[in-house]
Amino acid sequence: MSQPHDRVYNFSAGPSTLPVSVLETAQSEILNYRGTGMGVMEMSHRSAPFEAILQEAKANLTKLLGIPENYKILFLQGGASTQFAMLPMSYLHNGAVGRYVLTGTWGKKAVESAAIYGSTEVVFDGKAANYNDIPSENIEARPGAAYLHFTSNETIQGVRFPGEPKWQDPLVCDMSSDILSRPVDVSRYQMIYAGAQKNMGPAGVALVIMSDEMLAKSADGLAPMFDYKVQAENDSLYNTPPTWAIYICGLVYKHLVDTGGLAAAQDRNERKAKLLYDAIDHSHGFYKGHAVKSARSTMNVTFTLGSDDLTKKFIKEAESQRMDGLKGHRSVGGVRASIYNAFPEEGCAALADLMRDFAARNG
Amino acid sequence: MSQPHDRVYNFSAGPSTLPVSVLETAQSEILNYRGTGMGVMEMSHRSAPFEAILQEAKANLTKLLGIPENYKILFLQGGASTQFAMLPMSYLHNGAVGRYVLTGTWGKKAVESAAIYGSTEVVFDGKAANYNDIPSENIEARPGAAYLHFTSNETIQGVRFPGEPKWQDPLVCDMSSDILSRPVDVSRYQMIYAGAQKNMGPAGVALVIMSDEMLAKSADGLAPMFDYKVQAENDSLYNTPPTWAIYICGLVYKHLVDTGGLAAAQDRNERKAKLLYDAIDHSHGFYKGHAVKSARSTMNVTFTLGSDDLTKKFIKEAESQRMDGLKGHRSVGGVRASIYNAFPEEGCAALADLMRDFAARNG
Repeated sequence: MSQPHDRVYNFSAGPSTLPVSVLETAQSEILNYRGTGMGVMEMSHRSAPFEAILQEAKANLTKLLGIPENYKILFLQGGASTQFAMLPMSYLHNGAVGRYVLTGTWGKKAVESAAIYGSTEVVFDGKAANYNDIPSENIEARPGAAYLHFTSNETIQGVRFPGEPKWQDPLVCDMSSDILSRPVDVSRYQMIYAGAQKNMGPAGVALVIMSDEMLAKSADGLAPMFDYKVQAENDSLYNTPPTWAIYICGLVYKHLVDTGGLAAAQDRNERKAKLLYDAIDHSHGFYKGHAVKSARSTMNVTFTLGSDDLTKKFIKEAESQRMDGLKGHRSVGGVRASIYNAFPEEGCAALADLMRDFAARNG
Repeated sequence: MSQPHDRVYNFSAGPSTLPVSVLETAQSEILNYRGTGMGVMEMSHRSAPFEAILQEAKANLTKLLGIPENYKILFLQGGASTQFAMLPMSYLHNGAVGRYVLTGTWGKKAVESAAIYGSTEVVFDGKAANYNDIPSENIEARPGAAYLHFTSNETIQGVRFPGEPKWQDPLVCDMSSDILSRPVDVSRYQMIYAGAQKNMGPAGVALVIMSDEMLAKSADGLAPMFDYKVQAENDSLYNTPPTWAIYICGLVYKHLVDTGGLAAAQDRNERKAKLLYDAIDHSHGFYKGHAVKSARSTMNVTFTLGSDDLTKKFIKEAESQRMDGLKGHRSVGGVRASIYNAFPEEGCAALADLMRDFAARNG
């Protein structure tokens, strides 16, 4: 897991670190993809080599997540933010209600966008506690609900669900910031979607995994680009898809398969996160974690220091040690260490060392 | 303009050939962009280095096209096909009519998508002549028209407008397949848009150039991702933009500035196209051009041979000489040679040689 000396430890919340081996493969193929005489960026999306790239990406993703046969895999554009609109546009017709669980900033954006297209209901809003937890109670199903939407991991607050909730409404999950970080039971969801730029690849492609049952219920008469059925019938090739982004995602999927799949990824991620949470918990209150312990994210570790000056000093020292992107989002403040799948364990160890050392000198 | 020996002449209609020097720069920076310790795919879209990439891309594009100060430059997702929906969604409210000139397949798709959102009027449809020409008559302005939409170059038919039409309605132009191939008077348009994957960069980003006047008229209450005003206020950073695609576009803009701008590009493109059109015109009817001469595209040269068997044989011989992507679209048949900005002149010479030789042997 050692990385080239000239690279920093990139704690960015997204876009974020990619596996070095994936970047090296992309680098070597950029002018000539495997003897085709052209790079992937230059290749027709209807050519045989790109078709193979697309199908291999889907096959490896299916293997990683155990996607059942009655689900479609789509690669769309516009990021998760476009899904915030496509989802309600497609399902909040005929009075159907979209239900939303808000455990942070992204869930809130999702419901705001949905309200433009139909009826919505917020069934949990963690705002009062500044989004530091997930719902503790069961959420009763509601007849006529088109779906129950939640965000498995909130990037800004560093809060996440430890597993699939037991809710009975059709589940739709924005997994943008923790997809592929651990095994998931896809059959529990009607739809999973995720922007690529945290755990999968470059910004510019959003993954949608949707059951055939959900797909069939999608509204008619939408513009083709916003119609899940059109996108599925055309296997994401209704128009020119973001071919390079799909190619990189495919390399990442392959890399994950080759390194032990999602169970191994989960082990690595829990080990990495533990290094940082231990540093917080053993600091005698010098660092305060934002999330309650039971809802702590393994992807985004958020914590505050005693003052803004101390926070600034900490981030500056980290930068001098080639640790980049640690500034927390303004709505939470403090520090955010985003440590997605491809972030190296040695970077977490380096940050934990700094945390201990900094606390000893400034405590 | 010579290219590495292991690359083919890539006549693909898009995605298509990129400048070799751009690919080499991207290759050298893919793991570490100019000392930042990370690649552009891994970089926060809110970081200083990416902000510089975005602003430099806009500055070079402004220089190339002479974009006036009262225009905004946006980099959006979803390709031109999403613009087919965003445009009418934003402007066909309160009974305003969107007018469409159909000179080929893409204009037709644009009006079909627009009809979902409001009133449309087709003011010219070249279908009867299988889209081989542009309108010869002036199109009278219509009070209450939100815009008059046309496609400067039709990729499939190989038909294009020789310059800005003299129409008085607010002009909106899909320039996906010939933007940056020649100088344009931007002030004549209210909006220009273009998918990147022909003349600018990888698939996955669409450029929108819009006047402040047009922007102000955009409908309120749209989902933020579909709201030009939101995208403009956030300088294309409302959500995570396709950062890598924007970076490559920026490298292409810089390359065009460094090689003499759009007047020089136009010279090169006319020279390249002439090699192929001369081969058609001097073939004594062995090759028949699809477009009428006055509407011939310099980007997509479309022609047919006497039979399907002859066409197949021609394409096969071309492939054996490392010329790829020449099969015409099924709606026109025959051969399509797409020779965008980055396609090398020597590749056109090679194809013209083959055309003459093949006709001599099979005529």
